[in-house]
Amino acid sequence: MIRVVLLGGGNLALHLFQALQASTEVTVVQLYNRSLNKVQHLNHRVVLTDNLADIAAADLYIIAVTDDAITGVAAALKSKNGLVVHTSGSASMEALNQNPRRGSFYPLQTFTMGQKVDFKQIPICLEANNPADLAVLQQVAAAISDAVFEISSEQRQSLHLAAVFVNNFTNHLYTLGQEICLQHKLSFDLLKPLIRETVHKIETTDPYFAQTGPAKRNDETTLARHEKQLQKEYHLEIYKLLSASIKNTYGKKL
Amino acid sequence: MIRVVLLGGGNLALHLFQALQASTEVTVVQLYNRSLNKVQHLNHRVVLTDNLADIAAADLYIIAVTDDAITGVAAALKSKNGLVVHTSGSASMEALNQNPRRGSFYPLQTFTMGQKVDFKQIPICLEANNPADLAVLQQVAAAISDAVFEISSEQRQSLHLAAVFVNNFTNHLYTLGQEICLQHKLSFDLLKPLIRETVHKIETTDPYFAQTGPAKRNDETTLARHEKQLQKEYHLEIYKLLSASIKNTYGKKL
Repeated sequence: MIRVVLLGGGNLALHLFQALQASTEVTVVQLYNRSLNKVQHLNHRVVLTDNLADIAAADLYIIAVTDDAITGVAAALKSKNGLVVHTSGSASMEALNQNPRRGSFYPLQTFTMGQKVDFKQIPICLEANNPADLAVLQQVAAAISDAVFEISSEQRQSLHLAAVFVNNFTNHLYTLGQEICLQHKLSFDLLKPLIRETVHKIETTDPYFAQTGPAKRNDETTLARHEKQLQKEYHLEIYKLLSASIKNTYGKKL
Repeated sequence: MIRVVLLGGGNLALHLFQALQASTEVTVVQLYNRSLNKVQHLNHRVVLTDNLADIAAADLYIIAVTDDAITGVAAALKSKNGLVVHTSGSASMEALNQNPRRGSFYPLQTFTMGQKVDFKQIPICLEANNPADLAVLQQVAAAISDAVFEISSEQRQSLHLAAVFVNNFTNHLYTLGQEICLQHKLSFDLLKPLIRETVHKIETTDPYFAQTGPAKRNDETTLARHEKQLQKEYHLEIYKLLSASIKNTYGKKL
């Protein structure tokens, strides 16, 4: 049984807690959060603490706090013998410089409070600076996920950046789509089958080949009319830039 | 039984043909395409023609050709008594000016050759210039879809524009995400669970409330590092503009 101390009380920490506790190979021996209020509902399921001087002995310390809080939490673990990992897509390994055994445990997913996710399908990307520690991380990751990968820090940070494009930016485009609907008294629900199909397509085709629309087919008439229709400055700028990028991708002259 | 002539041989026309033929209230009496080659495989299921002077009598003519070909096809139907509609999201009603009975029959979906879609869930947006014709369109649309709406031309064109944001632009962001993955020897499959979850979230939450990421939380450190990581000009420009738009949406000072 691998003993884990989990540090953090946000969405990722709490989803990770559920998944780890449900596994038979890992036990969470303590959950740290700077405010006990937020994790109080777990007090019958795990030992809680809000005191970094009071962290229990464990095989693995998983730091699941915001990027700028990692170094502070990690510093409190510098005298521990266990392996210390963070869960950040973008933080470097240097954030754990004071910890002799360190690594990264990065679940590539977006977590929302109260929305259940199937951890089995979430890719977990691992990094450690020696094979024995990597093996520990692999065992913990495999206990909760069927998709475990070893990647470098540089790869992890690139993956996090790509995730901003396909998750954060995509969601923002949905927001803009809804704004346009609302301006014209249309329900955003009208667009949802199209949104689902757009995602469904890339299960079987590379998005490069799935591209459609006026920019892809160089339909200048529609592009010009769309630009005339757009009333908000950001809508127009984004329309122009993404259309230009699509033309650039498919080799049309600008 | 409503008799329909379908004009066009592209993705939409062929998907529409399948759906209409499967219904018990509509029969496709003729399929026109300027090239018979492309529709030859249907010659045991419907009368084919490539001659616009040879169009059969029908209750409804559905023009499912590219936007710039609509006027030409519609002109050939000017002496017909039946109702003439186009299926375009962006073309105006003026494209059918020569047709005394005219309207729009707009299925809001993206169609790919060979990929089956469930027409029942596809919103069909209708417009006609008199109630009797609208009733005909409603009957045909309801025969193939559970989501039938009456909207104005202006609403249809706005919907089409919003669709570009949530479908074409979103797909392009997937392409850029894959480019970033490939640059760093990462499989795009790693991002697919995240992409699925991004879409899944908006089934229960408005995208406005589902927004996450460095721009949303005004995390300047991550934003700056991401900008340094981006090697291609369009990647960087899109990163900056969409981040600025997210900040603008959530009221952060730029």
